[in-house]
Amino acid sequence: MNLPHAAGRPAARAITERNEIMADKQRYGAGIWHFATYVDRYATDGYGDPRTILDAIDLAGQVRDLSVVDLNYPFFGGDFTNAEVEVALQRSGLGVIGITPEIYTRVFAKGSFTNPDPGVRLRAHDLVTEAAGVVRHFGAEYVKLWPGQDGWDYPFQVDHHSLWKASLDGVGQLAAENPDLKFVIEYKPREPRVHMSFDSVSRTLLGIEKIGLPNVGILLDFGHAMFGGESPADSAQLAIDYGRLFGMDVNDNLRGWDDDLVAGTIHPIELFEFFYTLEKNDWKGVWQLDQFPFREDSVDAANSAIDFLKAVQRALGKLDKVGLQEAQSRHDAVTATRLAQQALFTSY
Amino acid sequence: MNLPHAAGRPAARAITERNEIMADKQRYGAGIWHFATYVDRYATDGYGDPRTILDAIDLAGQVRDLSVVDLNYPFFGGDFTNAEVEVALQRSGLGVIGITPEIYTRVFAKGSFTNPDPGVRLRAHDLVTEAAGVVRHFGAEYVKLWPGQDGWDYPFQVDHHSLWKASLDGVGQLAAENPDLKFVIEYKPREPRVHMSFDSVSRTLLGIEKIGLPNVGILLDFGHAMFGGESPADSAQLAIDYGRLFGMDVNDNLRGWDDDLVAGTIHPIELFEFFYTLEKNDWKGVWQLDQFPFREDSVDAANSAIDFLKAVQRALGKLDKVGLQEAQSRHDAVTATRLAQQALFTSY
Amino acid sequence: MNLPHAAGRPAARAITERNEIMADKQRYGAGIWHFATYVDRYATDGYGDPRTILDAIDLAGQVRDLSVVDLNYPFFGGDFTNAEVEVALQRSGLGVIGITPEIYTRVFAKGSFTNPDPGVRLRAHDLVTEAAGVVRHFGAEYVKLWPGQDGWDYPFQVDHHSLWKASLDGVGQLAAENPDLKFVIEYKPREPRVHMSFDSVSRTLLGIEKIGLPNVGILLDFGHAMFGGESPADSAQLAIDYGRLFGMDVNDNLRGWDDDLVAGTIHPIELFEFFYTLEKNDWKGVWQLDQFPFREDSVDAANSAIDFLKAVQRALGKLDKVGLQEAQSRHDAVTATRLAQQALFTSY
Amino acid sequence: MNLPHAAGRPAARAITERNEIMADKQRYGAGIWHFATYVDRYATDGYGDPRTILDAIDLAGQVRDLSVVDLNYPFFGGDFTNAEVEVALQRSGLGVIGITPEIYTRVFAKGSFTNPDPGVRLRAHDLVTEAAGVVRHFGAEYVKLWPGQDGWDYPFQVDHHSLWKASLDGVGQLAAENPDLKFVIEYKPREPRVHMSFDSVSRTLLGIEKIGLPNVGILLDFGHAMFGGESPADSAQLAIDYGRLFGMDVNDNLRGWDDDLVAGTIHPIELFEFFYTLEKNDWKGVWQLDQFPFREDSVDAANSAIDFLKAVQRALGKLDKVGLQEAQSRHDAVTATRLAQQALFTSY
Repeated sequence: MNLPHAAGRPAARAITERNEIMADKQRYGAGIWHFATYVDRYATDGYGDPRTILDAIDLAGQVRDLSVVDLNYPFFGGDFTNAEVEVALQRSGLGVIGITPEIYTRVFAKGSFTNPDPGVRLRAHDLVTEAAGVVRHFGAEYVKLWPGQDGWDYPFQVDHHSLWKASLDGVGQLAAENPDLKFVIEYKPREPRVHMSFDSVSRTLLGIEKIGLPNVGILLDFGHAMFGGESPADSAQLAIDYGRLFGMDVNDNLRGWDDDLVAGTIHPIELFEFFYTLEKNDWKGVWQLDQFPFREDSVDAANSAIDFLKAVQRALGKLDKVGLQEAQSRHDAVTATRLAQQALFTSY
Repeated sequence: MNLPHAAGRPAARAITERNEIMADKQRYGAGIWHFATYVDRYATDGYGDPRTILDAIDLAGQVRDLSVVDLNYPFFGGDFTNAEVEVALQRSGLGVIGITPEIYTRVFAKGSFTNPDPGVRLRAHDLVTEAAGVVRHFGAEYVKLWPGQDGWDYPFQVDHHSLWKASLDGVGQLAAENPDLKFVIEYKPREPRVHMSFDSVSRTLLGIEKIGLPNVGILLDFGHAMFGGESPADSAQLAIDYGRLFGMDVNDNLRGWDDDLVAGTIHPIELFEFFYTLEKNDWKGVWQLDQFPFREDSVDAANSAIDFLKAVQRALGKLDKVGLQEAQSRHDAVTATRLAQQALFTSY
Repeated sequence: MNLPHAAGRPAARAITERNEIMADKQRYGAGIWHFATYVDRYATDGYGDPRTILDAIDLAGQVRDLSVVDLNYPFFGGDFTNAEVEVALQRSGLGVIGITPEIYTRVFAKGSFTNPDPGVRLRAHDLVTEAAGVVRHFGAEYVKLWPGQDGWDYPFQVDHHSLWKASLDGVGQLAAENPDLKFVIEYKPREPRVHMSFDSVSRTLLGIEKIGLPNVGILLDFGHAMFGGESPADSAQLAIDYGRLFGMDVNDNLRGWDDDLVAGTIHPIELFEFFYTLEKNDWKGVWQLDQFPFREDSVDAANSAIDFLKAVQRALGKLDKVGLQEAQSRHDAVTATRLAQQALFTSY
Repeated sequence: MNLPHAAGRPAARAITERNEIMADKQRYGAGIWHFATYVDRYATDGYGDPRTILDAIDLAGQVRDLSVVDLNYPFFGGDFTNAEVEVALQRSGLGVIGITPEIYTRVFAKGSFTNPDPGVRLRAHDLVTEAAGVVRHFGAEYVKLWPGQDGWDYPFQVDHHSLWKASLDGVGQLAAENPDLKFVIEYKPREPRVHMSFDSVSRTLLGIEKIGLPNVGILLDFGHAMFGGESPADSAQLAIDYGRLFGMDVNDNLRGWDDDLVAGTIHPIELFEFFYTLEKNDWKGVWQLDQFPFREDSVDAANSAIDFLKAVQRALGKLDKVGLQEAQSRHDAVTATRLAQQALFTSY
């Protein structure tokens, strides 16, 4: 990988140093939107005063144990330069793990890569290309693609062959044009569209295999997998078996919607199984949060989630793995879940 | 706010006249938000240019066969007076069926009637009281209460006894203070809260019976019933049996979320059963739309829904009701659904 | 059927003695079907060799800490007398908490109380009446009504008014005829019917209030509440507020079906909230299991669930209730869930 | 088992003749279980008297317009020979489209291809191999694999990598050993397992591509796709694009479970879109029913479904396809659904 804009890259350097210091420590991350405020179709005046990305970075810096953030692009709340963002990140001791181009705003309401208007498809391409530049600037790990407006709402609305082809063409072209970078696709069953094209781990892997490039992978969101009726541990294993698990984030929900609740508040055992699967496969990477604390203090919500994740780490240390694998070899659910409970429910 | 709702009431008069003319015709209505544009947590810049309530009324006026609208209050998009709204309504030939106070915006993010802050609960009360004045001004039928922020997101978050009590106290006080008006509660399982207090037809009827006042009823949203796992026809029958079906609206969804799609595009047969139930009980009232055409032309979406509703009306005329009741007396599903299909699938 | 339920009643005596001994201890119970084997529409040859109710009682006796069972009636697997069942119960040191008449077998395929055939409705009435005699014989607490075949599958299949009326008439008549006994209704959204009449806590309370008798209450199944989109803690609070929470049982599921998994394996935190609510309301009663270990060792599955319930008991002791209530008074989810996690995740 | 599948093959001959006669007519089929009776975990005495496969074939013969059936193997209800089954089929004028080995009965409760016991995996392999012989005997089109017990119920129960590998190994070995036959996999999200290995169209295609043999494809069940949150039309398109749509069947449900209701009673428009997609891709094949009329007359239920399917055929003829494609090119949902309604709601 040849990334020419060396000298500057203070954030990248900061990450390297942090990595050295924390060599044996699990790193935590968060989408910077965790520290924004939100609107929805009812509270159109927002769940709080608007914040700029700089405000959000400052809040992120108040979270104990946060190392990296994923940044929306364009930077929200103002016309900020990379340099201004960098200053804020350094002040907060944060690195950048990924850049998320906002390919789901008004102009993309009928899709980014699959928009019926070729001009809009080009705008999506150009925005992602810009975001790729920001990834390089910050020495981040990947461009994150979340094409949430790509899909359909009604029966008969789209030609499904063309739509899926456009999804893959759009991603494939970007990956081919930027072979020095990783692109991660974050799938989700739906929202804002009634059905999203990249709807599941399997569909996304199928698409990635069709694209056939080494630099396209999956960002597995624990809650999206739950929402889609998947077992996140199984989804992680499948993505790993294809060599495509490039990133992950966690949160929680009631399985019927992408609630983006605080991780560990609803499904602690399945979250534990998810991390057990990552560890078993020797998957190293940042444990990220993708939470939307609409009505909560965002720093507190992040701290609480990370406290739980640390309990999970301790539980991974305690877990009787030999006993577990023996139980799994018999598909013995009672023994397996008991061992999981013993480890997790004594580790907070 | 001083609402002199006596002499003039031109809109009310307009309704009366229209009623006389259309004595034998089914009237159609719509929530005025059908003709607004929307934001959500992703497309924070909106799915279109903002519209004022006056713009929305003008669009509503372009729909064939629309007689009445339900108006959000405060009027969105500007500081409009009742008189200005009235002018727009008259220009469009529209009456007002109800007023929906916006008790779900930022200040009410943790609830209106159930907000932990008594000051906010008072603001909710005052806003609904103002809306009651607007109902009187326009000679509308009801104040519509949709306390979408009243509920909870997490286990352990609230004291359930207190929360439900506050829900009923809030509604009950308003109904007692305004005995000349009807209050309709529009229940929904969830959104924006993960769980909404008035979540189902049964819970709402239970609450209404506890309140014990004659002027509190239900506004039954077909899609909310579907979303909640109800059969809308059964929900309507139950509310009618308690004398509490004060209003209704329709739309469609995939049963897993309040998609607010165009009525009749997904569940035509259950929609037909819903209207059959209304007719069988001699329920007279406006057939309203509660659709959110995020990416569609809103006038076209309303026309298309009303075209379908007219097919339903024709199908009600064709339906072999004697045969149906005979089949129902045996719980004979095959005959019953065949009769329904025969009537509906030949009526467009 | 002539059930001489006076003098002897050895099982009832056994319960009394046990109660005295265990005065301060939480009692545990289980539906005896927990220890049966099952069939479904695919494995029509069953998930194991058939067992008689006596076999099942023997297995129940092997569970640590089980005090009482709920018995299906007629007793399955043979033509057993009450006396034979009593012998088995005594041998296993078990009492009887309730009797569940099987009003959901072939003859009741189109309903028990709501069957279109009056002859079948009479058979349902007679079977429940017999079961009432068995309750008296064993000195049990209640007749449990689970009218799982009462409902509908298709739109247009039934007249909803008549169906619901028949549900209430059927239960009401039995309760009126047997004022010395309690009748508990176990609601569930669906299965085996696509929609079950007593589908939710609110619908069931609405019906019970309409019946208007003191001896009809709810048996709240934690999993059924979850399946129905309820928060079980809220459901329990509501039933308690109406004085109608007569019994409860627990299990777990993925919220989309009545999976009857081992309690605590999926939703430990909501289960903890459920028991917290019971304790807060000073609800005393048996903590029962309603699990279907299709492929598991049933004794092991019961022991594992009870181990978890004991962790819940310890957690209730540890929980900072003052802190929790203070957090709830602000609807502060992060603090509330953190306190719950601290108590539960250190208590196994 | 010795299957002399050479010279005679009368059933196969019958199919050929029928094909010639009906060259231009759509053929209809059904799973023979449509005409059986059922048990479930509650009505353990069944929803009717048991029927043999010969009884079921006789009933199937009473359905208007049924050409072929899919047969469970072993033949249920008795120890019948292929010859006896053939006689019944000829008497009813029915051919055989596929054979479904029952790899989901008691012995396979913990899986067929993925069973932890290698002896059971061998039994699954042997049973499918026998079924392959029956396919050859009847000149049927495929062996249908529905590994409904292959999956898991609990978190931590299985090693996901091994489980999926065993799924593919099991199918792959059979396909390699029987290159003269087609194997179709019928995926489903769940039931009877809480999670089924072949859970979705994408996962199944991913597995088929990994197996890499030309004779493995998908049997797409419309209801399973709905249940899994898919749009069946999209699923069909995807399977066709991979050249793997080897068969299909239809029914209906409420999207939350595999209700196997009569086709067209709940989701007529999506069913229409599904068939539109098949026609657009020039997919020729039998339109099959997979319904479970638990409480209905099975012949009537089949006739009613086929009546609806014929309405769909007529609607396909009426549909303004040029207008539809033009609307789809703009993702114009209102126009597209209106055109669909115009065609379908005038075609019964």
